[in-house]
Amino acid sequence: MTRSTKLKPEYILQADPAKRLADTIKRLLRRNAYTSLKKIVAKTHAADLSVIFHSLTISDQHRLFDMISDLEQKGVLFSELDEDVFLSLVADMSVDTLVEILGQMPTDDVADLIGRFPQEKADDILKRMDLEESEEVEGLLRYDDETAGGIMVPDFIALKENITAAEAIRSIQEEHLEVEMPFYLYIVDDHDHLVGVSSLRQLVVVSPDAPLNTIMTTDVLSVKTDMDQEEVAKIVARYDILAVPVVDDGNHLVGIVTVDDVIDIFRKEATEDILKMAGVGEEFVETKSVLKSTRIRLPWLFASCIGGIVAFYVIGRFEGSLSRLTYLAAFIPVIMGMGGNIGTQSATIVVRGLATGRFNIRDMGTVVLKELTVGLILGTFYGLLIGSVAQLQYSTLGLTTAVGLSVVISMSVAAFVGSMAPMLFARMNIDPAVATGPFVTTSIDIVSVFFYFKIATVLLDI
Amino acid sequence: MTRSTKLKPEYILQADPAKRLADTIKRLLRRNAYTSLKKIVAKTHAADLSVIFHSLTISDQHRLFDMISDLEQKGVLFSELDEDVFLSLVADMSVDTLVEILGQMPTDDVADLIGRFPQEKADDILKRMDLEESEEVEGLLRYDDETAGGIMVPDFIALKENITAAEAIRSIQEEHLEVEMPFYLYIVDDHDHLVGVSSLRQLVVVSPDAPLNTIMTTDVLSVKTDMDQEEVAKIVARYDILAVPVVDDGNHLVGIVTVDDVIDIFRKEATEDILKMAGVGEEFVETKSVLKSTRIRLPWLFASCIGGIVAFYVIGRFEGSLSRLTYLAAFIPVIMGMGGNIGTQSATIVVRGLATGRFNIRDMGTVVLKELTVGLILGTFYGLLIGSVAQLQYSTLGLTTAVGLSVVISMSVAAFVGSMAPMLFARMNIDPAVATGPFVTTSIDIVSVFFYFKIATVLLDI
Repeated sequence: MTRSTKLKPEYILQADPAKRLADTIKRLLRRNAYTSLKKIVAKTHAADLSVIFHSLTISDQHRLFDMISDLEQKGVLFSELDEDVFLSLVADMSVDTLVEILGQMPTDDVADLIGRFPQEKADDILKRMDLEESEEVEGLLRYDDETAGGIMVPDFIALKENITAAEAIRSIQEEHLEVEMPFYLYIVDDHDHLVGVSSLRQLVVVSPDAPLNTIMTTDVLSVKTDMDQEEVAKIVARYDILAVPVVDDGNHLVGIVTVDDVIDIFRKEATEDILKMAGVGEEFVETKSVLKSTRIRLPWLFASCIGGIVAFYVIGRFEGSLSRLTYLAAFIPVIMGMGGNIGTQSATIVVRGLATGRFNIRDMGTVVLKELTVGLILGTFYGLLIGSVAQLQYSTLGLTTAVGLSVVISMSVAAFVGSMAPMLFARMNIDPAVATGPFVTTSIDIVSVFFYFKIATVLLDI
Repeated sequence: MTRSTKLKPEYILQADPAKRLADTIKRLLRRNAYTSLKKIVAKTHAADLSVIFHSLTISDQHRLFDMISDLEQKGVLFSELDEDVFLSLVADMSVDTLVEILGQMPTDDVADLIGRFPQEKADDILKRMDLEESEEVEGLLRYDDETAGGIMVPDFIALKENITAAEAIRSIQEEHLEVEMPFYLYIVDDHDHLVGVSSLRQLVVVSPDAPLNTIMTTDVLSVKTDMDQEEVAKIVARYDILAVPVVDDGNHLVGIVTVDDVIDIFRKEATEDILKMAGVGEEFVETKSVLKSTRIRLPWLFASCIGGIVAFYVIGRFEGSLSRLTYLAAFIPVIMGMGGNIGTQSATIVVRGLATGRFNIRDMGTVVLKELTVGLILGTFYGLLIGSVAQLQYSTLGLTTAVGLSVVISMSVAAFVGSMAPMLFARMNIDPAVATGPFVTTSIDIVSVFFYFKIATVLLDI
């Protein structure tokens, strides 16, 4: 157990102003102090409101939402809420109100939210929206949610390659005031093909008469609309850029993916991986109801249940030996536990190694061999230790050897299976994160128990 | 098991140009084709080189590094490498060469790397560095690695509040060409106190004569030098900003933390959490040697070993019952397995919920109660299922009840302990991520086994 030397801030309630604010808001809600509430809400950043929102009951969420008068604030809140909370909040909201709020939001967020509504309501909303915006939203809806096209914003500065720096600055001053990320100026040819990139800083330092195609950087990185969002995120992270342009199959510039979305992707993918590794689905269940949460977790435990029943039949086969040497049963937990734990270690290392790009499936041989070696070393160490306990207790060399040897085998097999399974899963395009879940640990349990009884039966001649 | 519908790109080798490049480079290294290698290396982005680096043997890493002629490329590579790889690479590099390469790097990265060298060598390097730079580096070294001060760059644009927009643009054109992130212009008073923020875009759209303090945004978010890096990262993510200014205790602007570092923090913290949850330390062990890796993993397995030995003594206490009803042993794996798996689910949900801010330790009551409810429901379901198997096999109502009841208790206790432990750990300022490791699962094992035998002994009257 490591005692962390730094104080992790989220656990220190007094120190976090958001938590203090949450307390104030809860108190005011209890007192129905609506005037004070409205004042506080108006002064609070929507991002902070969304944090507070998560800790309220559904009815308090509705009451607090009604206190917000700023449409933009409502919009930010919409895009920050988990799907369940969002749907309960908008359930009895009129289409007009929704259109008003969505009208304030970035197009990519609108497209995400539209997808959460039932088809009919979504169509209704799109129909009542500003034509230009609804076209942009529908444009984004064509792409898969988790691709570059699905997460891009159609909101960027594109300048023609043959205008001058001075003309470019003027056009930015006049036309592009609404653009969220004005740091990269993308340069396109007459057919909207992406040909280069520049920056406002570059424009202000060059001669005002210089045409853009003489000053731009032509070595511009772009991604295709159908690239998986995780890979887009990795590219933005790898090259330390603030946005990456997205092009369609014809190399026409159609949008950009910005770094704030990249952060969200990494955080979401990490949560997904962690939940999958523990066998709790992909989505965060704790914000869901007890029944929903139960339904998501039930099937993952099924693997473990089936595995346990198989282990039961395996042990049943050795009932004869057991009835003669009952104490054999006492070692089942330690043998299963050691195998299970080292298997989880190996699987986790491989899963995270694959996710962070530290190794890829082509390294399978090396990685599995290394894990097997570690398993053998650790297995020998703990085999000797646990064997000694058996010797102390029963002074039967046969039993000592059987227990020790079983630990070695169980731990080596576990390290092997634990590292091999995620690699194989990755090869078959199954997410390797599921390999650390009940499925693999349970197979290790069965193998461990089987070998233990087999070895004991042979060595003790029973 | 979920079959992922999207093809995760990192597993598709042919499609990734970095992987293709890695193959080419490995081939050229085998053939000692140094001229071609140099050409390819010169054309490759340093970030891509660092990916390839990880997949090479140590001697190939040295040979490839020697092919790099561009100092800046060497610098980027330095900052991307894991500590072990970096130290092996620089082991026999002269101080002069090191100073030359470090001279090309951002100050925050240099400060990080300096900390990896032995004290003497670090002092040597600092002495030979350019005075201004070494002072900046030493300034950063004063702060703890994992705080805002430790990760900030002293590289930002600060403008006096009383100059005009036109003067500001001129100063940016003349003085601040080297600044990495020229998007935020921080405005300071005569004593370098942070008083506002503006942007290049704002400067080009206002009247050139407007003094900065009339156009700036005064509502500027900043963090203190000693804030934990994880909290800094959360602020940048929450407010969707590209950089956050860092101030010292006297509110003097001393640096900025940029969004690219924030991405690295999130990825690193996610990896740390995942590894801790599996009981494999905090650092990624797979890039270390077999022995180092073994040493890190050994103590984490100790908890599981001790737990297993305790379970052994617990079962030993019931040897009498076991010798009369040997088949009791056959249910040990399924009861332990079900408890262990639901315990991991609960602990994971709570750990991730705390890390992402979905709930905090004040929600302990609600969260634990909910987990307990889920545990009871799932326990009843699987208790009935596994009890039925017992009934089918042995047709002994006492045994059926004992097995079924034990599953219910084991799963409820596991959900309770699994959700309670990380909450308590967080309260005691121990990282909750360790709660999913061997420590908690092992205690659940012991409790499960004990209750099982106790119930069986009573119900079967043995």
